[in-house]
Amino acid sequence: METWLHWVDLAGVAVFAVAGTLMAYKKHMDGFGVVVLASVTAIGGGTLRDMILDLPVFWVQDPSFFYVIFIAAFSTIIWLRSKDTFPLRYLFFADAFGLAFFNVMGLQKAMTYGASPLVAIALGTMTGVFGGLIRDVICREIPMVLKGELYATACIIGGASYILSFQLGLSTLSCMIIGFFITLTCRLCAMKWHWHLPVFNPHDSVKDD
Amino acid sequence: METWLHWVDLAGVAVFAVAGTLMAYKKHMDGFGVVVLASVTAIGGGTLRDMILDLPVFWVQDPSFFYVIFIAAFSTIIWLRSKDTFPLRYLFFADAFGLAFFNVMGLQKAMTYGASPLVAIALGTMTGVFGGLIRDVICREIPMVLKGELYATACIIGGASYILSFQLGLSTLSCMIIGFFITLTCRLCAMKWHWHLPVFNPHDSVKDD
Amino acid sequence: METWLHWVDLAGVAVFAVAGTLMAYKKHMDGFGVVVLASVTAIGGGTLRDMILDLPVFWVQDPSFFYVIFIAAFSTIIWLRSKDTFPLRYLFFADAFGLAFFNVMGLQKAMTYGASPLVAIALGTMTGVFGGLIRDVICREIPMVLKGELYATACIIGGASYILSFQLGLSTLSCMIIGFFITLTCRLCAMKWHWHLPVFNPHDSVKDD
Repeated sequence: METWLHWVDLAGVAVFAVAGTLMAYKKHMDGFGVVVLASVTAIGGGTLRDMILDLPVFWVQDPSFFYVIFIAAFSTIIWLRSKDTFPLRYLFFADAFGLAFFNVMGLQKAMTYGASPLVAIALGTMTGVFGGLIRDVICREIPMVLKGELYATACIIGGASYILSFQLGLSTLSCMIIGFFITLTCRLCAMKWHWHLPVFNPHDSVKDD
Repeated sequence: METWLHWVDLAGVAVFAVAGTLMAYKKHMDGFGVVVLASVTAIGGGTLRDMILDLPVFWVQDPSFFYVIFIAAFSTIIWLRSKDTFPLRYLFFADAFGLAFFNVMGLQKAMTYGASPLVAIALGTMTGVFGGLIRDVICREIPMVLKGELYATACIIGGASYILSFQLGLSTLSCMIIGFFITLTCRLCAMKWHWHLPVFNPHDSVKDD
Repeated sequence: METWLHWVDLAGVAVFAVAGTLMAYKKHMDGFGVVVLASVTAIGGGTLRDMILDLPVFWVQDPSFFYVIFIAAFSTIIWLRSKDTFPLRYLFFADAFGLAFFNVMGLQKAMTYGASPLVAIALGTMTGVFGGLIRDVICREIPMVLKGELYATACIIGGASYILSFQLGLSTLSCMIIGFFITLTCRLCAMKWHWHLPVFNPHDSVKDD
């Protein structure tokens, strides 16, 4: 179980590192600046979660997270060099996957710690939202959490379904899978549905450059 | 005493949740986005304080804070729906009350922990200022702490009066009441006094939208 | 050794407090607002480092850091009052020194704690970069870490040289001196070299005011 959870955490770190790298590319950053932004996006949410729960921060004793960030960032850079248009769409997809992975990890850690359901949902949402929020604030973008209403809401709905599954007596694994797919589905549907709404107009994200 | 302090903390959380909701309304956010911004404003300062003092974060074991945030946010939304102008004034008032409540809670927790007076004043100011600061940074507003000089200063003066009362041998309750009213008075007077100064011109806060 | 490290930490706090004060001056802040910005810049990075390593935050039990911040901020203000142009150059120099001091303190604390080399480099970079990052985010400047590629990179190169020295069996003192001067040299060279590149054009930092 522990090993399995470690892989979920690594997967979340990897996709958020890709999202951070895409944002760094959009901002014309070079070299190690990309690694810094990828790292902030990838470990920001989990670091806050562990500090709040007073657990050892997940990457301090385990350098594998940084190897994953390096591999994810450099693979993305190499892939981007062979393209010439900005893949804004991929940034949103990578962000949606990272959001769902981290929401579920936050829920799982908070429940293990003995937090009440409402606090677990808050901590899951925080884990999912915080890394991308710092990324957007540092890059002076309008944070995604403000753009459409179904960003934090996707985490809250996914969290509620996790808690419900948990209280129906399902295994932790089932709860996590259900929570993951409901968060991801909500977020992807929100992206589709908002596509034509002014609030989620992609031009908004360029306005302030 | 413990119960009494809990109510002070809840009151601070409630008024800062209202301040966060007013800002979310100004930014045309909808639904759960409001709850997220209200939560960040309301629990940001206290979370930082507890992490720095290495105490259990105040809301992790106690879901009542989230109920208060929900009630405060939804009451504010319902109240706003029946109005049609933006009550910028109320935002500043709610913010001033939250500042004073949290300053005093930060001072009290730091003194209980055995911090030196100077550190206690710093932690009180941090508790009061940090939630609103994150709110303004996320919303890409000019942080209130930068607008007029008597924002952080109100906390520092209130903190100094708390410490002075404490060293004169007054009870914790008296120290807190004195610190609260001096912080609040300084802040409200600063708002009045700056009202006609360009630095505190409300138009500044719209300039960057 | 302990006493000696304390002086290194105080020196880092002092130069970052000067950097924060210079930024506050640029932003036309007055009075205690300067002290708040100086404090955030000076203790932000180390506070994050200690919270992540789950150590007692370095300034909570030791008010001397706040005295240093006050002295550094007020000396800078008095010095600035006798000038009439904005010394942007000094801001960058003070920032470079603070970066090098804090990088080395972060590395040293992380290694003492038993972190792996990669994690130690990450924590050193974080300690060096975070205070200035918060300062720039609060002041709505383009963060220095985004302006040229050799900001975080200077910390990473300095960190790698520290680790290399450590693994060659040099004393902690030698490792710190080597790490300090390599970080500082990288950063100062980067400033010189980028001086004529559009990415590091000083006008960029004024664009958004």
